Amino acid sequence: MKDVYRPSHADYTIDAKYGIRNWQGGGRASARETIGRVAAGAIARKLLREVAGVEVLAWVSSVHKIDAHVDVDSVTLADVEADPTRCPVPESARAMTGAIEDARRDGDSLGGIVECVVRNLPAGVGEPVFDKLDAELAKGMLSLPAAKGFEIGSGFAATTMTGREHNDAFVPGDDGRPRTRTNYSGGVQGGISNGEDIVFRTAFKPTATISSEQDTVDTQGNATTLAARGRHDPCVLPRAVPMVEAMACLTLADLWLRQQMVDVLGPAR
Amino acid sequence: MKDVYRPSHADYTIDAKYGIRNWQGGGRASARETIGRVAAGAIARKLLREVAGVEVLAWVSSVHKIDAHVDVDSVTLADVEADPTRCPVPESARAMTGAIEDARRDGDSLGGIVECVVRNLPAGVGEPVFDKLDAELAKGMLSLPAAKGFEIGSGFAATTMTGREHNDAFVPGDDGRPRTRTNYSGGVQGGISNGEDIVFRTAFKPTATISSEQDTVDTQGNATTLAARGRHDPCVLPRAVPMVEAMACLTLADLWLRQQMVDVLGPAR
Amino acid sequence: MKDVYRPSHADYTIDAKYGIRNWQGGGRASARETIGRVAAGAIARKLLREVAGVEVLAWVSSVHKIDAHVDVDSVTLADVEADPTRCPVPESARAMTGAIEDARRDGDSLGGIVECVVRNLPAGVGEPVFDKLDAELAKGMLSLPAAKGFEIGSGFAATTMTGREHNDAFVPGDDGRPRTRTNYSGGVQGGISNGEDIVFRTAFKPTATISSEQDTVDTQGNATTLAARGRHDPCVLPRAVPMVEAMACLTLADLWLRQQMVDVLGPAR
Amino acid sequence: MKDVYRPSHADYTIDAKYGIRNWQGGGRASARETIGRVAAGAIARKLLREVAGVEVLAWVSSVHKIDAHVDVDSVTLADVEADPTRCPVPESARAMTGAIEDARRDGDSLGGIVECVVRNLPAGVGEPVFDKLDAELAKGMLSLPAAKGFEIGSGFAATTMTGREHNDAFVPGDDGRPRTRTNYSGGVQGGISNGEDIVFRTAFKPTATISSEQDTVDTQGNATTLAARGRHDPCVLPRAVPMVEAMACLTLADLWLRQQMVDVLGPAR
Repeated sequence: MKDVYRPSHADYTIDAKYGIRNWQGGGRASARETIGRVAAGAIARKLLREVAGVEVLAWVSSVHKIDAHVDVDSVTLADVEADPTRCPVPESARAMTGAIEDARRDGDSLGGIVECVVRNLPAGVGEPVFDKLDAELAKGMLSLPAAKGFEIGSGFAATTMTGREHNDAFVPGDDGRPRTRTNYSGGVQGGISNGEDIVFRTAFKPTATISSEQDTVDTQGNATTLAARGRHDPCVLPRAVPMVEAMACLTLADLWLRQQMVDVLGPAR
Repeated sequence: MKDVYRPSHADYTIDAKYGIRNWQGGGRASARETIGRVAAGAIARKLLREVAGVEVLAWVSSVHKIDAHVDVDSVTLADVEADPTRCPVPESARAMTGAIEDARRDGDSLGGIVECVVRNLPAGVGEPVFDKLDAELAKGMLSLPAAKGFEIGSGFAATTMTGREHNDAFVPGDDGRPRTRTNYSGGVQGGISNGEDIVFRTAFKPTATISSEQDTVDTQGNATTLAARGRHDPCVLPRAVPMVEAMACLTLADLWLRQQMVDVLGPAR
Repeated sequence: MKDVYRPSHADYTIDAKYGIRNWQGGGRASARETIGRVAAGAIARKLLREVAGVEVLAWVSSVHKIDAHVDVDSVTLADVEADPTRCPVPESARAMTGAIEDARRDGDSLGGIVECVVRNLPAGVGEPVFDKLDAELAKGMLSLPAAKGFEIGSGFAATTMTGREHNDAFVPGDDGRPRTRTNYSGGVQGGISNGEDIVFRTAFKPTATISSEQDTVDTQGNATTLAARGRHDPCVLPRAVPMVEAMACLTLADLWLRQQMVDVLGPAR
Repeated sequence: MKDVYRPSHADYTIDAKYGIRNWQGGGRASARETIGRVAAGAIARKLLREVAGVEVLAWVSSVHKIDAHVDVDSVTLADVEADPTRCPVPESARAMTGAIEDARRDGDSLGGIVECVVRNLPAGVGEPVFDKLDAELAKGMLSLPAAKGFEIGSGFAATTMTGREHNDAFVPGDDGRPRTRTNYSGGVQGGISNGEDIVFRTAFKPTATISSEQDTVDTQGNATTLAARGRHDPCVLPRAVPMVEAMACLTLADLWLRQQMVDVLGPAR
């Protein structure tokens, strides 16, 4: 891999930008880079729990064409950690394990979706124009290796609904705070949390490094083929779960800190 | 609307955060806020054109269930501006117009997808870890009012493909630079542009403000209903096109400036 | 002034950078620009008072060669506001008034020093490497029009002292917190507040716009002379006091917000 | 030093903030931390030289009460590096060496001033309000360990001059660009470079860690005394020179990158 670019990997772009790259596996385009984020995310998570009992929980909701039907309201950390796939629905987890094993044997790889819920986040977190809560989460998620898409609440499905179907009707809440009957908004309206659960999904492509032979070019620009050797994971989804949680915790902690100015001074009225 | 929260609008969250809100239509949650971005985007666009002939072009690719099949490689500004819907496929544009008119008559609203292509962006733009090109674009798009999702290249569809199907094979290019046979990557690998077209899509939900009666609460938390009066657009998609282009231009201009340090000094080799 | 550059004013540099400038007095190089900072500073001040009883107080400590000997520990807002010069020492204030009047009559202008104290700031505010408390204050002060220098605690005088003279001996404090016998550090050690008063000074040059005739060039580069007309203040010092306080409040509020992460989680031990 | 706070060192503030500190000498408050800045500064310097032939040169201009009279216009790198003190005036360098040796023998320490000149910086670099060239330099300099003050051009001395004395008269320049007869502005007017040399000074206090016995407290708050052991430099000035240059290069490179947007599009006229 020293002289040949892996298709759909950052080998070529890193080389084009810097003229130097780490082809042995520990470069900045490796998911190993996220270890620092996961460590920092653990501290951010502690802050969020301490100040408001905020809980951040992610899981694998699909691998390739296997879709787990997870109940966002009731899923727990124990459910997620019960299986190495980090899919909380046992039969889906089993099917995913099979599909991943098949892909490995076949020299191929699979992608999927990680879903994440944030519970107990108070209303008011997020800035109204540029640093919207959903915009910051989108940036955090797309900063993860292999991420290709982000959606919050109804996401892309919102585009095939009408306003009447999609609007989250307000209903009086127990504690005076309005609640919503549905949560198509995914807990964010106008870039600011509304007190409902934050729910978002991140799409991860199939791993670029596979052992099947593929057409590519070498660093001199000549056509060649490559079949990767070495220990490459055919599906990053289970390991993407802590990355997603870490970036969510870091993003929320930053916005929570900015909200302290407002909280200390109290609303204008 | 002074005393009642519109469902799925930022009325409640702005109030929860600040204790004050502009209910007359010109608040920061209004799409009118983006006028400054569009103005600044025009200058950023000029920079991009000047330095590298970069072209940024967006269009409406779907409204509700009407999907236009646009040829990303050949679509032009003239095609987009030929119809007020900003959908470059005439028969789709007509269908969209009809659907939007129906929604208006029906007191309802529609969402859809804006697609955007960036042509002639050189390889090397974007930072390798946090400020990835796709992460910055995702933040820019989700900062737009009513945006619920972002995907680049294959996006969510990538999750149902295998690595063998999804990897963009490199082939020798005319000018020595490797080209890719397909563009599932959407022009970005490892957060850095690879010289192919950047292609991304943003999902917009149906407008929250509709004239149909909806359940909601007033600012005192009491259940009530609301049927919005006034001039509210049943579909923001045509007007979202310049917003998407503006945020794309601003994002790319920022990253291009950061790339100058690298370009001036040349790659390490 | 439309066609001629005022010496030592930003007329030429704004023109060199942008090719356009507001020569009528309301440009971005005018001290009027600081009105937004003073407004925002009032909110930041409220935060600081609310969360920790922090007090920020500045005054004119010198004008030209008139040095007021102000007791930093006891000076009050009432002392500062007792005279339009905002110098809290009455006899110095009178001398400054006379000097400023003389300069005005003479078509000349004067500079001076604003000193500022921050009381009750808890220990721990400020970041250890780049965003040091003193570095942020220095940036804030040098961002004010006509500022030419900044020093904290002993400042430039520290350079003629020895370590034995300059070190602030620690002594046991009443509340368990160590106090310092002297305060040459100006309340900051290693970029982080130590709980003592923050004390700093900002130097302002004499106003550039004067009514005396001066050599200069016109916008075509030809030698000419200029004697400014209009309402130009011969000494900005009294009006610099609220600017200094505003930038101090904004700087401290930002760093206080960042400190919340640490405060909520508690120190590591 | 594990249980006792060094007076005027960051021992106590780091402990107050984090509850943990590296007392063995390699903590973030050590000047050793600046190694990364010096490395990055070397790359920034290369950029500045490449794009505009910018030269950044600093030297020791005073140690304790020994003031070297350096000709800012003619001093060279060879002059500075001719003596380990990095003072380019041989007789002053000798006197400084003697004073530093005396301080070491005496268990004491000395401070001083580093002066820096930036040559060939084009007019137009620096932002007009918050990120002024002089404000960014001030932040960079005060971020250095032991820095207590910053001044640009005339600095604090400006406060005892009148406008007539202090204003830098413009005179026609050879290349059409106006030049100034004097340079009290230090090359910056309104936060933006005017094409003259940038000249600024940074004050460094005497090293806090000395071998003389001093009053202090231990980490439990009890009074005690401390006489530092180990290899501690009685004067940081010679080693502050590369730090000052590095932060100047980094600051200028950042502002130069931001200026590219303006330079590419050309001035408005």
